[in-house]
Amino acid sequence: MDYQAVLEEIYKEIQPHFGEGKVADYIPALSSIDPRQFGFSIITQDGSTYNVGDTQTDFSIQSISKLFTFTLALDIYSRDLYTRLGVEPSGNPFNSLVQLEYEQGKPRNPFINAGAIVVTDSLIAHYQDDYKAFEVILNFIRDVADDNTISFDPEVSSSEMEHAHRNLALANLMKSFNNLDNEPNQAVQTYFKHCAISMNTQKLSRAMLYLANGGTDPLSNKKYLTPQQTRRINAVMLTCGHYDASGEFAFHVGLPGKSGVGGGIVAVVPGKMGISVWSPALNHYGNSHLGTLALQKFVEKTGLSIF
Amino acid sequence: MDYQAVLEEIYKEIQPHFGEGKVADYIPALSSIDPRQFGFSIITQDGSTYNVGDTQTDFSIQSISKLFTFTLALDIYSRDLYTRLGVEPSGNPFNSLVQLEYEQGKPRNPFINAGAIVVTDSLIAHYQDDYKAFEVILNFIRDVADDNTISFDPEVSSSEMEHAHRNLALANLMKSFNNLDNEPNQAVQTYFKHCAISMNTQKLSRAMLYLANGGTDPLSNKKYLTPQQTRRINAVMLTCGHYDASGEFAFHVGLPGKSGVGGGIVAVVPGKMGISVWSPALNHYGNSHLGTLALQKFVEKTGLSIF
Amino acid sequence: MDYQAVLEEIYKEIQPHFGEGKVADYIPALSSIDPRQFGFSIITQDGSTYNVGDTQTDFSIQSISKLFTFTLALDIYSRDLYTRLGVEPSGNPFNSLVQLEYEQGKPRNPFINAGAIVVTDSLIAHYQDDYKAFEVILNFIRDVADDNTISFDPEVSSSEMEHAHRNLALANLMKSFNNLDNEPNQAVQTYFKHCAISMNTQKLSRAMLYLANGGTDPLSNKKYLTPQQTRRINAVMLTCGHYDASGEFAFHVGLPGKSGVGGGIVAVVPGKMGISVWSPALNHYGNSHLGTLALQKFVEKTGLSIF
Amino acid sequence: MDYQAVLEEIYKEIQPHFGEGKVADYIPALSSIDPRQFGFSIITQDGSTYNVGDTQTDFSIQSISKLFTFTLALDIYSRDLYTRLGVEPSGNPFNSLVQLEYEQGKPRNPFINAGAIVVTDSLIAHYQDDYKAFEVILNFIRDVADDNTISFDPEVSSSEMEHAHRNLALANLMKSFNNLDNEPNQAVQTYFKHCAISMNTQKLSRAMLYLANGGTDPLSNKKYLTPQQTRRINAVMLTCGHYDASGEFAFHVGLPGKSGVGGGIVAVVPGKMGISVWSPALNHYGNSHLGTLALQKFVEKTGLSIF
Repeated sequence: MDYQAVLEEIYKEIQPHFGEGKVADYIPALSSIDPRQFGFSIITQDGSTYNVGDTQTDFSIQSISKLFTFTLALDIYSRDLYTRLGVEPSGNPFNSLVQLEYEQGKPRNPFINAGAIVVTDSLIAHYQDDYKAFEVILNFIRDVADDNTISFDPEVSSSEMEHAHRNLALANLMKSFNNLDNEPNQAVQTYFKHCAISMNTQKLSRAMLYLANGGTDPLSNKKYLTPQQTRRINAVMLTCGHYDASGEFAFHVGLPGKSGVGGGIVAVVPGKMGISVWSPALNHYGNSHLGTLALQKFVEKTGLSIF
Repeated sequence: MDYQAVLEEIYKEIQPHFGEGKVADYIPALSSIDPRQFGFSIITQDGSTYNVGDTQTDFSIQSISKLFTFTLALDIYSRDLYTRLGVEPSGNPFNSLVQLEYEQGKPRNPFINAGAIVVTDSLIAHYQDDYKAFEVILNFIRDVADDNTISFDPEVSSSEMEHAHRNLALANLMKSFNNLDNEPNQAVQTYFKHCAISMNTQKLSRAMLYLANGGTDPLSNKKYLTPQQTRRINAVMLTCGHYDASGEFAFHVGLPGKSGVGGGIVAVVPGKMGISVWSPALNHYGNSHLGTLALQKFVEKTGLSIF
Repeated sequence: MDYQAVLEEIYKEIQPHFGEGKVADYIPALSSIDPRQFGFSIITQDGSTYNVGDTQTDFSIQSISKLFTFTLALDIYSRDLYTRLGVEPSGNPFNSLVQLEYEQGKPRNPFINAGAIVVTDSLIAHYQDDYKAFEVILNFIRDVADDNTISFDPEVSSSEMEHAHRNLALANLMKSFNNLDNEPNQAVQTYFKHCAISMNTQKLSRAMLYLANGGTDPLSNKKYLTPQQTRRINAVMLTCGHYDASGEFAFHVGLPGKSGVGGGIVAVVPGKMGISVWSPALNHYGNSHLGTLALQKFVEKTGLSIF
Repeated sequence: MDYQAVLEEIYKEIQPHFGEGKVADYIPALSSIDPRQFGFSIITQDGSTYNVGDTQTDFSIQSISKLFTFTLALDIYSRDLYTRLGVEPSGNPFNSLVQLEYEQGKPRNPFINAGAIVVTDSLIAHYQDDYKAFEVILNFIRDVADDNTISFDPEVSSSEMEHAHRNLALANLMKSFNNLDNEPNQAVQTYFKHCAISMNTQKLSRAMLYLANGGTDPLSNKKYLTPQQTRRINAVMLTCGHYDASGEFAFHVGLPGKSGVGGGIVAVVPGKMGISVWSPALNHYGNSHLGTLALQKFVEKTGLSIF
């Protein structure tokens, strides 16, 4: 299939939709971004790369980073991780305290904020230092993206820390249920740092290849996870990757994917390719409006849904 | 792959687990069933059939019937159906009123009880008669299963009607939000009738073929749904098919599936086969204990996960 | 104190507020009432009566009837009644299903709809017949109001029954938790009948005297309850008598009271008097707007708060 | 009435109940207290004092302090305080986050933890310094109790601060809704300091006199609040003073009262007297078991219920 032609067709078709959606405004450092940007990258298992639009512009990956921390924690703790968090969709907005209290401090899954904070906390506990833990996270992302220049934006993470009260509420609540090993402030700060990592769609699509290939990077041959673990991460992406719109995403796109409020989305076609799309304006669920639309078109044109 | 050998291997491996789990006891007519039964059937798109265990014993399909009513309603109402119900996982037990009240009478998805009652109500409204609607449902199931002898067990549906107060509460609540066209009693009664349809795993696996083949039965060539509609039904099965354990099922099995409290489970390998397994004892989520275990083994042995 | 002068002063002061608030519109038979009506009656323990405004106009007492059914049930079942319902404020709108489900079908108090339906159900169970139970309720009200002409308006109760789906949802939910002895329909129908009883403020203030006098009518010397039971009913009125505005009412008025959506309010000054006020337009909590204002003024002018 | 005889009678009657209930164990510094202690003090408006049992033993007043901070904040902010918190019973356990999230960071009343933290925050904001605010609180309590030796136990407040994660979750959640002016840590720390103030029942009953006498201390003639404000504080005590058992307390005791997990309870008979009782073992609602029982007996014997 001529993927380059497909991407260009999609790029043309979404033009009338520029201007729809709304950039996330609760993080000052992100709110001033130009919404009229769009990039779409795919990379197949043999390394063939296809790009259209602003695929070389870095943006804040935000919650997409939860995928990488989850991978690391799963590799370290294996099934023991699930004593601290679940793999069920939340059925509630991504930062809800209600469910967390009802379920006694055990987050529903690793992709809601509470779950991602627990995952980060587990990495700090393992490496016995928050700076060391962050370094490991950053190096892992550089490794799977095959790009040693990737870094984080301290202005973004500081800006988030100033508006962190709800996440601190989540972390303190989990601490009160003994589901946090480190200080709430420390876990939340490290969490914001990995959310503030900057990448572009080409790097992100590259970073998905190990998940498209059973846990082993098909280009570097590095093995990160077992095939079973990989299938399970993909399953959690599908059921929980888009907060309270995960069902909608599965319904309309039908690929394991993960979104971030910076406007990025990553997705995986198991056995075939890594995908990333980016456009800063969000729909009312907090997922990239044009990104979701473009992925839907991609699946319609290629038939690459897992269903 | 020698599917018959795989099924027999699984059958052997699950033997030590007989006796685990618990038969549903809230429906008197179902509570007396012998829990030590197990059947596993698959049928590939070319019609090859593989059976192991009690695959010829009829049982109450219960919530599996929601898959067929959803198919019919989707065919009639297309996207308009989604003004009345969603496609998001519920994150709550299958018969919870809380979420239904919070979301003003609009059920989260077609597979929780409230959603299935709305679907049934929509069919009664379309056929302007509850008996006619039920006849259409039954005939559709006979058609996709290619078996004209399939019927329902009036003793089971009557027994359920006597313990229907929670479902009547759901139906009355939706009626108070103007999301029910017919009388609550009528919708619930018809719902129980299609839940009380009796089938065995061989018939059920056969009935899944249209969902494994883009909406068209590969053996009869009858077209029931478009490929897009079919992918979407499969996506809803994956995200919502096992109530509050849908995430677990996606995580461990990784196939679109739907369970019933009678102990049956159906699943689909898109492009490949229809599957059904049955064993009456349930795990604490209300899904067949041995059935879930067997499907997990099947995917591990065959690698047929969609992830 | 010259109570007549106080009432007339209040009557003058509230004039500018006519037109504020909104008549209940969910019961068709009640929605057409002229909102510009107002009556205020008090009767002291020696039988002295003071009236101002429309005190001879009958209106639908609605939830005020819950006070009389609670009295009857308490007399019959004594403390056993509290196995089926509590005496805590609900902290939620009066017809919420959420709390009822969370607390497994046991209503928080006798004055929210669910609690009143349980109370009515307990009376039907005791008299083994719904018509007989209703007759007992009506006769009790005639007795405490010392007026044999009091009756109910069948048009109002039928009109409510047509919009009863939410109350039927509550009743079915309680039935599913085994906290209803009779059929949901029967309990709800009888409940609507006693809500549809018509009285005016003079009769209602008279009907409060037994609660102002330790359970014994000071004029007829009939004993209905023990002093302790009476104090407890008054306490429940204070903490739960105005749905989710009970705290506000205690805060601003400071008397045990009970409101109805027909615009009536009754209140008690223990050891002193029975009070009733009526005006059909409601505030956003569903309590009479002018009635609440008038009672607040009454307490400010007379210092008769219990606090 | 011979109050001394009444107290001694009660003291005798509760003896068989020593050993019931359970000392609060979530604050280490409080958990080691001897549960077999009991003191009961009353003081009438003319200054006559009646004591029985351990009335000279200081204990941690804990949540009783919320009454004094509420008085101070009401005096400073008057009705403006109610833009930040309500006066409705919560209908939920005292430290629930669910309701706080549902109601967007506005606590239901000043006596649940979230409400008391807002009140403390408002005092810090007014005095522009947390140490100054605490000094004002302590001096006010010394003033109303007429005892300059009253102080707080830093060991208790530090011990609480170490287990403060749930209260910090509440404070951070309110901060995220812009309902906290100061840093969550600062507000919570000051809150714990005033909770750690030590008093005995004689001092506490004395400190209630201004609330029993329309806001003016009848012995010193100092005016703290208007009669209307006082009636309203008493009303909030009655409807909200005992967390989720406020209805039970109104039902069984029928006096405005406030409890603390240190085992103390204060109550007011408007126009007559201040009351305090103490016994460390708590019932399952977190209120003093023997204290509640003793107050119930007191009201039964004296008829001093407000109802």
